Amino acid sequence: MTTNSTPSDQTRAVLLKEREVEVRPAAVPRPGPHQVLVEVAAVGICGSDVHYFEHGRIADFVVREPLVLGHEASGTIRALGEAVTDRTVGQRVAMEPQETCGRCQQCLAGRYNLCPEVVFFATPPVDGAFAHYVVLDSVRAHPVPDSMSDEAAALIEPLSVAVWAAHKAAIEPGDRVLVTGAGPVGLLCADVARARGAAWVGVSDTNDHRLEVARQRGATQTVNAAAGPLVEQIDPVNVILECSGATPAVQGAFAVAAPAARIVMVGLGAPDMMLPVATIQIRELVVTGVFRYANCYPGAIALAASGSVDLDSLVTGRFGLEQVTEALSASRTDPHSLKPMVYPGTKRI
Amino acid sequence: MTTNSTPSDQTRAVLLKEREVEVRPAAVPRPGPHQVLVEVAAVGICGSDVHYFEHGRIADFVVREPLVLGHEASGTIRALGEAVTDRTVGQRVAMEPQETCGRCQQCLAGRYNLCPEVVFFATPPVDGAFAHYVVLDSVRAHPVPDSMSDEAAALIEPLSVAVWAAHKAAIEPGDRVLVTGAGPVGLLCADVARARGAAWVGVSDTNDHRLEVARQRGATQTVNAAAGPLVEQIDPVNVILECSGATPAVQGAFAVAAPAARIVMVGLGAPDMMLPVATIQIRELVVTGVFRYANCYPGAIALAASGSVDLDSLVTGRFGLEQVTEALSASRTDPHSLKPMVYPGTKRI
Amino acid sequence: MTTNSTPSDQTRAVLLKEREVEVRPAAVPRPGPHQVLVEVAAVGICGSDVHYFEHGRIADFVVREPLVLGHEASGTIRALGEAVTDRTVGQRVAMEPQETCGRCQQCLAGRYNLCPEVVFFATPPVDGAFAHYVVLDSVRAHPVPDSMSDEAAALIEPLSVAVWAAHKAAIEPGDRVLVTGAGPVGLLCADVARARGAAWVGVSDTNDHRLEVARQRGATQTVNAAAGPLVEQIDPVNVILECSGATPAVQGAFAVAAPAARIVMVGLGAPDMMLPVATIQIRELVVTGVFRYANCYPGAIALAASGSVDLDSLVTGRFGLEQVTEALSASRTDPHSLKPMVYPGTKRI
Amino acid sequence: MTTNSTPSDQTRAVLLKEREVEVRPAAVPRPGPHQVLVEVAAVGICGSDVHYFEHGRIADFVVREPLVLGHEASGTIRALGEAVTDRTVGQRVAMEPQETCGRCQQCLAGRYNLCPEVVFFATPPVDGAFAHYVVLDSVRAHPVPDSMSDEAAALIEPLSVAVWAAHKAAIEPGDRVLVTGAGPVGLLCADVARARGAAWVGVSDTNDHRLEVARQRGATQTVNAAAGPLVEQIDPVNVILECSGATPAVQGAFAVAAPAARIVMVGLGAPDMMLPVATIQIRELVVTGVFRYANCYPGAIALAASGSVDLDSLVTGRFGLEQVTEALSASRTDPHSLKPMVYPGTKRI
Repeated sequence: MTTNSTPSDQTRAVLLKEREVEVRPAAVPRPGPHQVLVEVAAVGICGSDVHYFEHGRIADFVVREPLVLGHEASGTIRALGEAVTDRTVGQRVAMEPQETCGRCQQCLAGRYNLCPEVVFFATPPVDGAFAHYVVLDSVRAHPVPDSMSDEAAALIEPLSVAVWAAHKAAIEPGDRVLVTGAGPVGLLCADVARARGAAWVGVSDTNDHRLEVARQRGATQTVNAAAGPLVEQIDPVNVILECSGATPAVQGAFAVAAPAARIVMVGLGAPDMMLPVATIQIRELVVTGVFRYANCYPGAIALAASGSVDLDSLVTGRFGLEQVTEALSASRTDPHSLKPMVYPGTKRI
Repeated sequence: MTTNSTPSDQTRAVLLKEREVEVRPAAVPRPGPHQVLVEVAAVGICGSDVHYFEHGRIADFVVREPLVLGHEASGTIRALGEAVTDRTVGQRVAMEPQETCGRCQQCLAGRYNLCPEVVFFATPPVDGAFAHYVVLDSVRAHPVPDSMSDEAAALIEPLSVAVWAAHKAAIEPGDRVLVTGAGPVGLLCADVARARGAAWVGVSDTNDHRLEVARQRGATQTVNAAAGPLVEQIDPVNVILECSGATPAVQGAFAVAAPAARIVMVGLGAPDMMLPVATIQIRELVVTGVFRYANCYPGAIALAASGSVDLDSLVTGRFGLEQVTEALSASRTDPHSLKPMVYPGTKRI
Repeated sequence: MTTNSTPSDQTRAVLLKEREVEVRPAAVPRPGPHQVLVEVAAVGICGSDVHYFEHGRIADFVVREPLVLGHEASGTIRALGEAVTDRTVGQRVAMEPQETCGRCQQCLAGRYNLCPEVVFFATPPVDGAFAHYVVLDSVRAHPVPDSMSDEAAALIEPLSVAVWAAHKAAIEPGDRVLVTGAGPVGLLCADVARARGAAWVGVSDTNDHRLEVARQRGATQTVNAAAGPLVEQIDPVNVILECSGATPAVQGAFAVAAPAARIVMVGLGAPDMMLPVATIQIRELVVTGVFRYANCYPGAIALAASGSVDLDSLVTGRFGLEQVTEALSASRTDPHSLKPMVYPGTKRI
Repeated sequence: MTTNSTPSDQTRAVLLKEREVEVRPAAVPRPGPHQVLVEVAAVGICGSDVHYFEHGRIADFVVREPLVLGHEASGTIRALGEAVTDRTVGQRVAMEPQETCGRCQQCLAGRYNLCPEVVFFATPPVDGAFAHYVVLDSVRAHPVPDSMSDEAAALIEPLSVAVWAAHKAAIEPGDRVLVTGAGPVGLLCADVARARGAAWVGVSDTNDHRLEVARQRGATQTVNAAAGPLVEQIDPVNVILECSGATPAVQGAFAVAAPAARIVMVGLGAPDMMLPVATIQIRELVVTGVFRYANCYPGAIALAASGSVDLDSLVTGRFGLEQVTEALSASRTDPHSLKPMVYPGTKRI
């Protein structure tokens, strides 16, 4: 580790059990040979953080030990592991919050997000970024331009999900793209569809406020799914990015799929759903899903840096480390909440 | 139409209603400008023919007028439409039993099987090939080599389904491929997987005789799905070609899909099925279906001509036009029946 | 043909031989069953028009009979062939100036631009659009929104070339794209690269005025190729769209290709060039070319309609039918000329 | 390193300078944490070995220090690095002779063969396999079935080149494939094309003996390129695998490329060649090259294990470690030489 003046102690917000978070002292971690130490600037709150906070688990991932949440994070490199030559102290970075083995069949094929040994921030038992300092592999600390805000750099994470989904859907100029679900990831999926040249980008939800946000961000058409079947409200589409996780939304979406449409399941919902297999066959639909992302940070950073996608406008709340409980509750307390941000460091709101 | 000595009258086997077929006289059709007149040599019986025979309908396709069944057909060109320059009288051909508009978005994109105006043999109200003579577009009459039997030329049709499914799955050397369902199309899917260099080709079914046939044709492993969950019997696979249409088979198959596996739904079954959406997401599976095929006949003919796929050995019965009822009943009367053939013309059994 | 009040006579600008164009009377053509009659609104002048005008030939295509030039054209449908049901009289359209057989292997595979029987406007002996009226297949007459100018609708043609090139290069968010040659097609290639989310779009040329135009249209970096080797002026790129046709530009471009870069040859130049085969191998570059386009008009119209690509600003001159010689000479007489437009109809400059 | 009884000393054949090889003692290397120690069984001689032997260099790779040649190698695992859990002592393996960084953009994207830090056996200054023992990363030591000979296991290396080339060309059933150059890699390319279901596999060369071998291995047609232009001898093809490296062969091959054909440059030849750019454009050919391979060993092993590709029949000579000079000279001394094998270990000829 290169010489530097980082402190040896820090504080972190730790989830002890459902709805109980405490700010606790901890040692500042030392970066491994290929890692960097990052002073965290801003952390977005994701639905998965809220779910762990409220339920203490997501499916088979159970919070058994105190867990630091937060995986949408930006910061500044403060120290380098001894083998790091591709980063410098002082660089501002967006953190890709996963580490993979690099040796399995999936990693060698370039699908490192499917690595069976993948480790991901804020997924038990791995700690996340509600902390003053974290370490991660240097190749996952992606430099961002000076012009990019800390918030935008943190939100490269959910933007990467959208970039990955749009890549899987192979969106091209001229495509008609439907996004079902106008939460943060859905809004970003619509943004990326537009940034890839989609001819028409429709967004459906049952929340009129969110539809209004989608409209302001540039959606061609918004549809309240509660107003009737999608198939009666919109023309057929070539691409569906399903971001609601709601079974009725999924089923309604298939009905508007044109022949040869690509459907990407992004939102997590029921593990099993009744799907229209005959429609998949007769229209030769292609259905797939995304699990995080691989090799998406550079493209996401470029889209945000060029102004094609506006990340700052997603922020709806700003909280210090001691207010993490409040931040994690914002989606309940503020009906217009989209993306609360936590600032673990000295930078304050 | 070029001058020729084809007769003006013929006979055809006509389905009047459920379980009632009659041989009736009919005029020999005249080929349109781009069509050829083909004297039918051999016609395979497909599950869809049997379904129309037994139920008078498939989903929304109802037999309201007398219908000629049969769409897996070979024959010899006997006359040419006036604009035909790419075929000659006397050529033996495998008939691709569909005609499309050539002008819609799907046709122009090369997905002519998804043409909304597609016309297909033996799908009400379009007649099929249980007849002495039929006409079809010259580009759908694919020449076959002299060495190929009439039966094999007819069975290029189901082989094209398998070629299309394997193409959609992008099977490559080294892939592990599971075929669920060992009917004629499943057996051919296994053959094509092997012909594309698959490392391992497993076949599952609940019928031991069919599994034995699969083994004889070269399957690496066969599995009786009744003996327990597939996931306990085989290792994960990269490709699944689902040819059973049985909901439990579909669900069992997803459980053995490796990360990034491709799953192609070939067999028709229930229009809606409970599918493991979370598995599709977490493993980033790609799920699609096939609806007939496009641009597959040349490849299928090549595979059969080279000996890579043996079509003749699928034949399990031979019937004249007057025995069509018997042929359509073979799957019930003969437990080992795979592919009964009908010979409408002068060639007899 | 539906009843209508189109006149029976018109005038057209006809190229008789090198540098000799004459406005001549002609009959208004009658649309075939699947064709529409279009009153031409605006026609862009392409480098190929200029080349025929100056040399009377392009490679093996020789002007032996009087030829109407012009293939970048828009207009309004004035009459319909008897089988046309998908268009209406009065629709404003961008004309895709090619007709194909719909029956060959290339057409059936969706690559209709490679049809051996393709017929293209203004390619001897087929007449183009410097005329009051032309006919073309209804599916090639692509409706445009009211908000799109006649000029933009005409320039959908060169934009389709750029859309096709960018599609072949599979440009994605995050890609670094170099466009060599800043003529109209090069400028549009840069625009489409940006519209697909490219992270960096560089443009090289030896003409500083054109580089300035590229900069104004949004290029990230412009490079005067005369100032030294590209490899010394820019970092490696993932995509090269070669639009100059100049052998030194092509060779210079290969030197900046990153591993696995895609290179699309768009500009026509010398039929044979010395290319760095070892570099193609060691970096596993993918090199291809474009010949016109297939299935690109809808996407191009969408990009122009959404404002992603500004076509109107390319126009640098406006001429009536009697001024076609002047229009065809503009690239020589006006050093800043990019896209002269001809207005054959009643609409005047 | 697990306990074992491997000796501490061994011998290796070392190239000192052009045409001077000496068998020298050396220490048995100790495997690093993720490496295995392999007792070498058989090593094929590649054209690159011969080139180093005869010229002391290949392009910029110069033999400055004594170098162990040989990179087509098989053997048996004799010891494991401390972190190795996926291999066992005693396993027979085909060795993929490259190690890569696992962290660069190319590695993370699954293109590890393009890693700028790739290390490859027998490429100065990295030693190869003409030795009793070598070490390599456990994930590059690919287990082979008992039924596979040592020779076949060694020749998985050149077979992987062919598998990679055929993958790049996306050969499918029905394709017409031309292989130019009938050396070992060309013969294997023809084999793999056939194993992927190609309809027609033509092989061209100027050596009648090699064409006879190609015919025996199953080529559909063989062509002596000296007998006249290829375009006069064969019909157009969809795929060309260029394995000769000879400029006239490359140029002749382009002439027989059908529209949309894929051309893969496999053989190394002149670094620059005059290529028909206009043909690439007008036919929209796709031209690429291969640099070694990535993720190909499992597929290659499967093709050899299933009998789809016969590797043993390529062997034309067998030599001990002391006979390496003789082995490296076989291509000059034996006009029918294809693949001489070296057996460094106790197993003798």
